[in-house]
Amino acid sequence: MTHPFPFSAIVGQSEMKQAMVLTAIDPSIGGVLVFGDRGTGKSTSVRALAALLPEIDVVAGCPCNSATPAAVPDWAEGVGTEIVSKPTPVIDLPLGATEDRVVGALDIERALTRGEKAFEPGLLARANRGYLYIDEVNLLEDHIVDLLLDVAVSGENVIEREGLSIRHPARFVLVGSGNPEEGELRPQLLDRFGLSVEVASPNNIDDRIEVIRRRDAYEMDYDAFMAHWQGEDASLRKRILEARKILRAIETPDATLRDCAELCVALGADGLRGELTLLKAARAVAAYSGAETVGREHLRTIAASALRHRLRRDPLDEAGSTTRVARVVDSVLA
Amino acid sequence: MTHPFPFSAIVGQSEMKQAMVLTAIDPSIGGVLVFGDRGTGKSTSVRALAALLPEIDVVAGCPCNSATPAAVPDWAEGVGTEIVSKPTPVIDLPLGATEDRVVGALDIERALTRGEKAFEPGLLARANRGYLYIDEVNLLEDHIVDLLLDVAVSGENVIEREGLSIRHPARFVLVGSGNPEEGELRPQLLDRFGLSVEVASPNNIDDRIEVIRRRDAYEMDYDAFMAHWQGEDASLRKRILEARKILRAIETPDATLRDCAELCVALGADGLRGELTLLKAARAVAAYSGAETVGREHLRTIAASALRHRLRRDPLDEAGSTTRVARVVDSVLA
Amino acid sequence: MTHPFPFSAIVGQSEMKQAMVLTAIDPSIGGVLVFGDRGTGKSTSVRALAALLPEIDVVAGCPCNSATPAAVPDWAEGVGTEIVSKPTPVIDLPLGATEDRVVGALDIERALTRGEKAFEPGLLARANRGYLYIDEVNLLEDHIVDLLLDVAVSGENVIEREGLSIRHPARFVLVGSGNPEEGELRPQLLDRFGLSVEVASPNNIDDRIEVIRRRDAYEMDYDAFMAHWQGEDASLRKRILEARKILRAIETPDATLRDCAELCVALGADGLRGELTLLKAARAVAAYSGAETVGREHLRTIAASALRHRLRRDPLDEAGSTTRVARVVDSVLA
Amino acid sequence: MTHPFPFSAIVGQSEMKQAMVLTAIDPSIGGVLVFGDRGTGKSTSVRALAALLPEIDVVAGCPCNSATPAAVPDWAEGVGTEIVSKPTPVIDLPLGATEDRVVGALDIERALTRGEKAFEPGLLARANRGYLYIDEVNLLEDHIVDLLLDVAVSGENVIEREGLSIRHPARFVLVGSGNPEEGELRPQLLDRFGLSVEVASPNNIDDRIEVIRRRDAYEMDYDAFMAHWQGEDASLRKRILEARKILRAIETPDATLRDCAELCVALGADGLRGELTLLKAARAVAAYSGAETVGREHLRTIAASALRHRLRRDPLDEAGSTTRVARVVDSVLA
Amino acid sequence: MTHPFPFSAIVGQSEMKQAMVLTAIDPSIGGVLVFGDRGTGKSTSVRALAALLPEIDVVAGCPCNSATPAAVPDWAEGVGTEIVSKPTPVIDLPLGATEDRVVGALDIERALTRGEKAFEPGLLARANRGYLYIDEVNLLEDHIVDLLLDVAVSGENVIEREGLSIRHPARFVLVGSGNPEEGELRPQLLDRFGLSVEVASPNNIDDRIEVIRRRDAYEMDYDAFMAHWQGEDASLRKRILEARKILRAIETPDATLRDCAELCVALGADGLRGELTLLKAARAVAAYSGAETVGREHLRTIAASALRHRLRRDPLDEAGSTTRVARVVDSVLA
Amino acid sequence: MTHPFPFSAIVGQSEMKQAMVLTAIDPSIGGVLVFGDRGTGKSTSVRALAALLPEIDVVAGCPCNSATPAAVPDWAEGVGTEIVSKPTPVIDLPLGATEDRVVGALDIERALTRGEKAFEPGLLARANRGYLYIDEVNLLEDHIVDLLLDVAVSGENVIEREGLSIRHPARFVLVGSGNPEEGELRPQLLDRFGLSVEVASPNNIDDRIEVIRRRDAYEMDYDAFMAHWQGEDASLRKRILEARKILRAIETPDATLRDCAELCVALGADGLRGELTLLKAARAVAAYSGAETVGREHLRTIAASALRHRLRRDPLDEAGSTTRVARVVDSVLA
Repeated sequence: MTHPFPFSAIVGQSEMKQAMVLTAIDPSIGGVLVFGDRGTGKSTSVRALAALLPEIDVVAGCPCNSATPAAVPDWAEGVGTEIVSKPTPVIDLPLGATEDRVVGALDIERALTRGEKAFEPGLLARANRGYLYIDEVNLLEDHIVDLLLDVAVSGENVIEREGLSIRHPARFVLVGSGNPEEGELRPQLLDRFGLSVEVASPNNIDDRIEVIRRRDAYEMDYDAFMAHWQGEDASLRKRILEARKILRAIETPDATLRDCAELCVALGADGLRGELTLLKAARAVAAYSGAETVGREHLRTIAASALRHRLRRDPLDEAGSTTRVARVVDSVLA
Repeated sequence: MTHPFPFSAIVGQSEMKQAMVLTAIDPSIGGVLVFGDRGTGKSTSVRALAALLPEIDVVAGCPCNSATPAAVPDWAEGVGTEIVSKPTPVIDLPLGATEDRVVGALDIERALTRGEKAFEPGLLARANRGYLYIDEVNLLEDHIVDLLLDVAVSGENVIEREGLSIRHPARFVLVGSGNPEEGELRPQLLDRFGLSVEVASPNNIDDRIEVIRRRDAYEMDYDAFMAHWQGEDASLRKRILEARKILRAIETPDATLRDCAELCVALGADGLRGELTLLKAARAVAAYSGAETVGREHLRTIAASALRHRLRRDPLDEAGSTTRVARVVDSVLA
Repeated sequence: MTHPFPFSAIVGQSEMKQAMVLTAIDPSIGGVLVFGDRGTGKSTSVRALAALLPEIDVVAGCPCNSATPAAVPDWAEGVGTEIVSKPTPVIDLPLGATEDRVVGALDIERALTRGEKAFEPGLLARANRGYLYIDEVNLLEDHIVDLLLDVAVSGENVIEREGLSIRHPARFVLVGSGNPEEGELRPQLLDRFGLSVEVASPNNIDDRIEVIRRRDAYEMDYDAFMAHWQGEDASLRKRILEARKILRAIETPDATLRDCAELCVALGADGLRGELTLLKAARAVAAYSGAETVGREHLRTIAASALRHRLRRDPLDEAGSTTRVARVVDSVLA
Repeated sequence: MTHPFPFSAIVGQSEMKQAMVLTAIDPSIGGVLVFGDRGTGKSTSVRALAALLPEIDVVAGCPCNSATPAAVPDWAEGVGTEIVSKPTPVIDLPLGATEDRVVGALDIERALTRGEKAFEPGLLARANRGYLYIDEVNLLEDHIVDLLLDVAVSGENVIEREGLSIRHPARFVLVGSGNPEEGELRPQLLDRFGLSVEVASPNNIDDRIEVIRRRDAYEMDYDAFMAHWQGEDASLRKRILEARKILRAIETPDATLRDCAELCVALGADGLRGELTLLKAARAVAAYSGAETVGREHLRTIAASALRHRLRRDPLDEAGSTTRVARVVDSVLA
Repeated sequence: MTHPFPFSAIVGQSEMKQAMVLTAIDPSIGGVLVFGDRGTGKSTSVRALAALLPEIDVVAGCPCNSATPAAVPDWAEGVGTEIVSKPTPVIDLPLGATEDRVVGALDIERALTRGEKAFEPGLLARANRGYLYIDEVNLLEDHIVDLLLDVAVSGENVIEREGLSIRHPARFVLVGSGNPEEGELRPQLLDRFGLSVEVASPNNIDDRIEVIRRRDAYEMDYDAFMAHWQGEDASLRKRILEARKILRAIETPDATLRDCAELCVALGADGLRGELTLLKAARAVAAYSGAETVGREHLRTIAASALRHRLRRDPLDEAGSTTRVARVVDSVLA
Repeated sequence: MTHPFPFSAIVGQSEMKQAMVLTAIDPSIGGVLVFGDRGTGKSTSVRALAALLPEIDVVAGCPCNSATPAAVPDWAEGVGTEIVSKPTPVIDLPLGATEDRVVGALDIERALTRGEKAFEPGLLARANRGYLYIDEVNLLEDHIVDLLLDVAVSGENVIEREGLSIRHPARFVLVGSGNPEEGELRPQLLDRFGLSVEVASPNNIDDRIEVIRRRDAYEMDYDAFMAHWQGEDASLRKRILEARKILRAIETPDATLRDCAELCVALGADGLRGELTLLKAARAVAAYSGAETVGREHLRTIAASALRHRLRRDPLDEAGSTTRVARVVDSVLA
């Protein structure tokens, strides 16, 4: 029984599921931050996402999942040219991971003595073209956060030690889960997540019964349960693939650019990353819904996820960030 | 004199003994947390439990107690196919244990140089299919707690170092003892324990005399003492084995699912793990009592143990968690 | 001049001397904790105790003082079968001792490479069948305290490193001295000491003169001084040996069990170790005085030493613990 | 797509861009400190600056970018005499960099054993004749700050270990970015930066739209976008080169010296570095504008950047440092 | 110019000089603690003491200054039987000294591999039969203080590592200087010093002029200065040697013992070490003055030095400890 | 352009310059402590001092600048007998320097294995017969301060490790700069500095203009600038050499000794080092001015520098230490 719980069988939690689907359509949106209580299925849904995503073509044996033999880094040893397909990687970054384990370890001695690029790739290499999952991201050590920020900006992992320099692509979607009661995120790290969602335990009795029933069936009646839900997952995968195909062809009117800027100014969002993320996420919504132009209806759908974590705290406004975004969206896009 | 004090000879402490028996019937209930004063026999009863439990069949020499030769991990050296039976393992996890000692140690150098999977398994391997006991679990270091949480979720111990990956099953029942005066448990760790019980020194003089008499007899008149109580232990073991056999055949009516959900919502229990644990523990109670259907009488028996450690603190309700669970059970299951 | 100051020549301090004699009669009573001012001869009396105790028979060269060749651990190298007698060991555990020095050091590399059990035994091995003395036990580091507690429970020292397991018996009487002004003991450690005594400098001028006179004589007129007091020590040793012989034959009436329990309940002593220790210490008092039955007179003699360190602090009762024990003894055993 | 975003395509931020251009004209002005919010393009503009700057002639393979073979340090191995041109180096100094990585690592053992100058140059060598960029300079560890201050004073990196001494030139412009909310700079480090500028997100909607449009075009329509802006960058580079040529010929009247001193005294600037920096920066402004004499109009242009970070806090004056400089400039240069 | 400033040429400071002379007569008095201001010649006088003390006979090359070949420890390599005389050693114990440097370093690896007692003796070996000087003893690290206390009790340095045991005699007089403003001594360490003295800068102008004159002469006119004062030192040395000879023959009346006890009880001195030290120091005073019996006049001379550091703080008595001792001496010995 | 800014070209700062000149005349005065604001040329003036000082004769290759072959330490390898002259050394002691780097590193292994004195001398060796400069001496780590104090007292650096002993002369003038706002000096370290001076930025506009003009000329018109000021430096060097010659012949009347003592008593200066330093510094002033006798006019000139850092804080006297010294000088030397 090694197949994870199906993505489609997750009860409720539609905002979280939407955000994950959008990053599957356009990974450059830049990561999902999931805040919420314990026991709301955050880690379950990440593992479910892994099983849902389409497979990728990679050069067999390439440590950073290169798509073509030309892209295989020069330090990778014994990699051929055969192309195989494998599941989209989902890599866990455990809280206590050392820098060497994250970025890879360079065997300086061997490098200096024998002149070989003796590099053991780390988690960032394995996450290339996939997802990097950090449970309790608010507890991550600062120097690892710094590493991730650097790599997230450049899409490349550069290891420099004693005059040696190793590099490989490291483009991945960061998925972080956190419990806001256990510590805040540094604003700089917050800003790196394209989208943020809030999850909570269902208060509705019938939803809760449905959750227990499905979990109990998954454990007690595995085969029948999976037969049903893997079909649902296949439909969803197909729709994602179609949205990817039309994404670049979506038209972006000037009015939409102006809507993005006005929303951000009205919300007092820090920096300019908010506008760009909002535009991209709305474009992915448009693609998912099969539209040809990105417009206000797409901005409305995704504004809360794209902007709520970029607001400055406003001591005069006691409303939560979700309410504040909704209010501004209503007023600016009226 | 190496045989531990018999489980049946423990005076009183019926809630703790019930919880331990239930995890012996269905290990997926997920661990027992024992809170209480010093000198109430917490560690004695764990060692007694070890001697009570039925023996398990294992592949001779397998470091993680595999049941069949096919399940022996590939890194285990020199393991044959003979099946032997041995006592259910009970492994102590000492407070100062290093990560290497808990998860196992990978000899990176030998692995890289000779290409061998040079892995020394740790305490988690030895605990597979048995019990892992942590005395003073509230004093455990955070990074070891994190390791345990990961493994407890997945039932698998995965060691990844410098691109190497080692895995083995690690399914065990966690038994923790703690003194609430010496430090609180992280809620995440609390949530991992299926059941929690409270123990205290007996206030009744006759019980205390009986305790001294039995301990004195165990030391002064070992042979006669053991002859009597090992018979009691054998009866208990037989009843546990019968309950295991009928567990999967117990019927679960929709009304029981609804009772579980309503109890948890009424108590404001965090997350959804409460419902599932309550259902499983009640089903084990049903099996132990020979019932064919799990119902309200079983929920009542086990509700306090399954839910008291999952309550949010309620500043307006000064009652202890046991009283709060009892009140809600009376009202919801009235 | 290497022979320590004679035990019998210690002026006063009768409670401390009584406690040490009782643990020499029945080591399972479990250790003596000596609290008091500087310069009251605590460390002197421990070294004196060493010289008073009867010699023990050991296998020559056995690192843990085994009584028979069959008991010599398998990792001990080059130990024969000759039996020799040697003084009862008294081992100092210095405050800064490392874990390796206390429990012994395992040479992992040699063990893995050559398959040899390359174990250097530590202080716990040397203390087996003897005394382990800790000066300023209240300053001992927590992780060493934890080690001692584990071994004190099991009577066995188990060293587990990277899958290797070494064991040897480690049964010893713990003698700790402490200055209550410099830090409290953890209640768990307190509970491990069977008896506790309080010592103070004599206020009586004649006693003080006698102390100076004896110390000055010991330094200035060594030979004559020792000739006298070693005779006294020999008589004491003989009486201890006789008490050991009759200990197991002492009768324990039910009324005495009830007295023990009622004393502990009346005093609100934590846990159940108090009753058992009180019973054992009273039995040793009975044996020392040549009685056939353990009764109230023996309980009265030793109640303060056995119970005073097990009381909870009572903010409404300003009396010291010695007074509180005496009051309860008077009332319960009236 | 490896070419950075063009310097000329940065919207607004004219003070920051002016400061960077001036240090390109006269590197002895001594560094630029950029304070401001996240997401205002600080790190983008540094990388853009790198691409704008004229290439430099270096000895091929020289680890510290020497201009002539005679200047190559004696410890550099296998460097020939060929002169090549390469982009002006812009080196990132990451926050967690070790001292060895910054100043270079000396292999003591090899040096002592074989008498070879076994030196692996560090980031300071690579930054020679270029820019050293430190993101979040206010979080830099103190001992690295100390190293940088030493080298910034002397223009030379001296590594002394166990009697060995290694040196190489290390003249670079320090560019630091910082967020004043996350920690203050030590005044000594502040004083080392010749110029300081403040940046903020644009509040103007049209500017913000222009930013999004350009960033979106850079990602979506790379080739056309770069064709346009690299032309703009080329014009700017030409003007910088002309200013460099005439810099030494600019006349410095005594009245300008007196203006510098009076401005600093009136502002209560600590130390004397303020006057010298103000003079040099004004001279670079004069050269950029093609003037023959440095005078009041040039002092006015650059006074805020040269002096605002050198003011003592004045508890009676609530105005920001920019306002205070402006007021004094108006009064002194009236 | 390597000969230290002569002991006799020290201006004033008679209590400190008396204490040092007495420990030269009877080293078992146990050390001198010198408390006082900076610049009062504490360290100068210790070095002066070294030059004053009679030479000792030692086995040539013995690392712990053994008096006879039989006393040379077994681990000392290549030591012959020749007896030579050398100055009484005065060893500095610097504040940052490691444990290995103080007690000696055992080369475990060599010991285990080749079976050799590979021991490098430390400062305690070199101090045997001499003086151990600790400047600023109140700043000494606790674990080094613990080491010193152990050795000071036993007169022997025992190094036990991994089952190996090395020992050598370590009898020395501890001389500590301290500045009471920079930290208190642990009472246990205070108690180990036999005598304590207080020093201060002279307030008298003529004394101060004399100090300057002598120091200036020592630097400016070395030969004449030394010729005069080394003669004074020789007379003092002769008197010390005579006192040593008659020390054991001094009579100790019971009345003197009683005086010692009554003084200590009246002062409330902790422990019993005060009486014994007072007796010994008075006996040394008697020997120095050529008396045949130790009596009240000798107790009066040394009572302040022997007892002032053993008083408990008395919040109702604002007098300094010197005054309190004097008052009690006047009353008890009236 | 490697020659430092000329000492004579420093504008103002006459007290600091006087103190440095005096220690060049008599190094036994013992160091200069320079307290003041940033940017007042403290480090510039030390480097200027280096270039001003007369060259010294040393044995070529001697690691501690020995004047004669006989003085070369025995551990120095391959040093011949040729005498060469070299600039007076000025060694920087950086804040983070390790103990090994300061005192030198002993290669224990090589020493024990091959019996060679394998010593790599440290900064103290290189500073012998020169200046040791510590910027921000108030931030120096305590254990390095302790090392410096030991060496400053003895004029000798003794390294003792594992029974090996290495020594070499280490006589140098300590020059420390500090910013009183960043931390106080330990009084013991303060006391080691013979003289202390206070520096501040000039408030006078014309002085400030002169500073800018000279610094600008030094950078823009190096050759002409140096030609002028190196002549000034040469005159100063000549006068210092003449003062050195007559120093020992200066007469010291008793009245001057009494003046020194009375000044120190009146000021309440701690210890006796104040008097001796005052005397020596006044004698150097006398030599510099060509006088034959040291008298009140010389004491007046240097009293503030010699005594201001030795005053106890006086809570009733709000005057700064400079004012307090001046007042006492006026009254005592009236």
